[in-house]
Amino acid sequence: MRAVIRRAGRLIVDAMAEPVPEAGQALVRTLACGICGSDLHALDHYDHMIELGERLGGPGHMQRGADTVFGHEFCCEVLDYGPGGGRFKAGTRVVSIPGLVSPAGFETVGYSSRVPGGFAERMVLSDMLLIEVPNGLDAETAALTEPLAVGEHAVAKAEPASDQVFMVVGCGPVGLAVIASLVARGLGPIIACDYSAERRAAAEAMGAHRIIDPAQVSPHGSWAEFGVPASPAEGLIAAAQGQAVKRPVIFECVGAPGVLQSLAQAAPRGSRIVVAGVCMQTDQLEPFFFVAKEIELRFVLGYTPEEFAASLTNLAEGRTGYGAIITGQVSLDETPAAFTKLQTDKSQIKILVKPGS
Amino acid sequence: MRAVIRRAGRLIVDAMAEPVPEAGQALVRTLACGICGSDLHALDHYDHMIELGERLGGPGHMQRGADTVFGHEFCCEVLDYGPGGGRFKAGTRVVSIPGLVSPAGFETVGYSSRVPGGFAERMVLSDMLLIEVPNGLDAETAALTEPLAVGEHAVAKAEPASDQVFMVVGCGPVGLAVIASLVARGLGPIIACDYSAERRAAAEAMGAHRIIDPAQVSPHGSWAEFGVPASPAEGLIAAAQGQAVKRPVIFECVGAPGVLQSLAQAAPRGSRIVVAGVCMQTDQLEPFFFVAKEIELRFVLGYTPEEFAASLTNLAEGRTGYGAIITGQVSLDETPAAFTKLQTDKSQIKILVKPGS
Repeated sequence: MRAVIRRAGRLIVDAMAEPVPEAGQALVRTLACGICGSDLHALDHYDHMIELGERLGGPGHMQRGADTVFGHEFCCEVLDYGPGGGRFKAGTRVVSIPGLVSPAGFETVGYSSRVPGGFAERMVLSDMLLIEVPNGLDAETAALTEPLAVGEHAVAKAEPASDQVFMVVGCGPVGLAVIASLVARGLGPIIACDYSAERRAAAEAMGAHRIIDPAQVSPHGSWAEFGVPASPAEGLIAAAQGQAVKRPVIFECVGAPGVLQSLAQAAPRGSRIVVAGVCMQTDQLEPFFFVAKEIELRFVLGYTPEEFAASLTNLAEGRTGYGAIITGQVSLDETPAAFTKLQTDKSQIKILVKPGS
Repeated sequence: MRAVIRRAGRLIVDAMAEPVPEAGQALVRTLACGICGSDLHALDHYDHMIELGERLGGPGHMQRGADTVFGHEFCCEVLDYGPGGGRFKAGTRVVSIPGLVSPAGFETVGYSSRVPGGFAERMVLSDMLLIEVPNGLDAETAALTEPLAVGEHAVAKAEPASDQVFMVVGCGPVGLAVIASLVARGLGPIIACDYSAERRAAAEAMGAHRIIDPAQVSPHGSWAEFGVPASPAEGLIAAAQGQAVKRPVIFECVGAPGVLQSLAQAAPRGSRIVVAGVCMQTDQLEPFFFVAKEIELRFVLGYTPEEFAASLTNLAEGRTGYGAIITGQVSLDETPAAFTKLQTDKSQIKILVKPGS
């Protein structure tokens, strides 16, 4: 079969061996698979990602010098099963948490040198993890289940409540997933910030209440208007005057060095910052500012199986406008260029790879 | 009157003007005042502390090039009042949050170039903030109210619960205050870590359940024994086997660069780290480890008036062994040498200045 393969530091399109399903595994055809920011990072910083995984002590599945097929945000069609068969008929459209359960243990799909991810014509997936796509939802939107689940998880970890005001810093696929998940829960107000006009437009379309271009105005100028006091003392005075006092929650969805420090310097005292952006570089910060403002940092990653399933339901039942993040669809041959485009053109949000096109 | 004064980068003992109470203020005699780690830092990094305060946008009260009398952990005796008098008779022993309310606003006591802190024979304090020392509690122990309140606040911010296991990293005055506050609430088990044998002995006397010298053994080797799983997957398996699954809470009470990163690398996944140590330098960390383990950092500072009062009660009713942290008592003349001793000799924990001795 054909696949986009990371080989010797570059993406190439080449033939590779067909994956063979074992017992409990399905052979699937990839219908659509999103390119994630982590894929862009893994392309250029492959060995560093392996090193971080080793230092974490986890079982990493990417191997130095080996071919790897990325792609973990997919919607597929069941083709066949390994020995013993499985739950779904051939032709059923499914999504899955990008993991493969085998006798050897749990293996990630999309960051493994042993099994291909979604930038290949076909994959093997675990039958027990497959969820059928409901309501005739199209494959392209269903492929957004995985990134949307990242937002769903971040929102759950924020312990959202009706006395909070939410700020989303960075409106790429993660920030927009947070906005979509907040909106699906009826939570707000939501202040959304991004330097890109296209991403600000997407945030507005998704339901954010205040859209800010940080190049023009500080997003933190909006807190007071939504009832967030600048300090506990101001909060006490406002409460004594009978005003509703709101608490600030910030979703950091950029994942670049310096963002946490700049937030600590500008955010209101007592801010809860949910760190959903994955910064792979070493970062610097001055703890004094975090201490003086009693900042809370909640670093989050991934999602639970329940959050993944809830995201598919939200998409299938039309509870979010998250489908609007798709700004391009490409074939396998066009995929290397799409990686470059995503790295340089911030008007792009989510590009889907369609191996069959 | 006489005071220990920071002047031109050094501590000297000199005469200074008597403080004069305004309306609502008491003139008090300092009976005992603890030397805090922040005092040691402020002596050497005075201008940097001013700069950090300015960048925070707060009204700092230390002035560049001006004399400053430190000391914010005090027990005093009421001598007299400003115009209009006050609540307490002369001779009453009191403690107070180190702040002064005046027509000009709120002013810190102990980090101000305008009013003296507790390393002076006399101070002015706000009558409304004074709390009478109960139960005949001695002045030395009462002077520990302020540092103990720091521990009380850190414990409250941890949202402590009976399914948690607590680790205290660094058993100086802050770490021991955390242990004392946990013990006073009946919470545990408590794992206490410090390189100093004297501080480990104090932690044990205070009621910590496991005492660890990190030079000999990793403190993180004890989690499993107390029921904290190394990962959520291990937790699910343990729960399915009917075992009690505990959650890890770590109190960072060191406040030095590198500690947060080392904790993120070694701590169990899902750890809540309450950052009670105040690191004034720039720190470096690799967010990847915090993300991959879904670490939560709660930076805390100070205490509420209620926590301050509760700490005095805990001391007066003998609910903690915190009084044992006093390792020395010095006169004003001996205070500069005591600063040096605290910086170099980690067998020292808390030295009290007694301006009348």
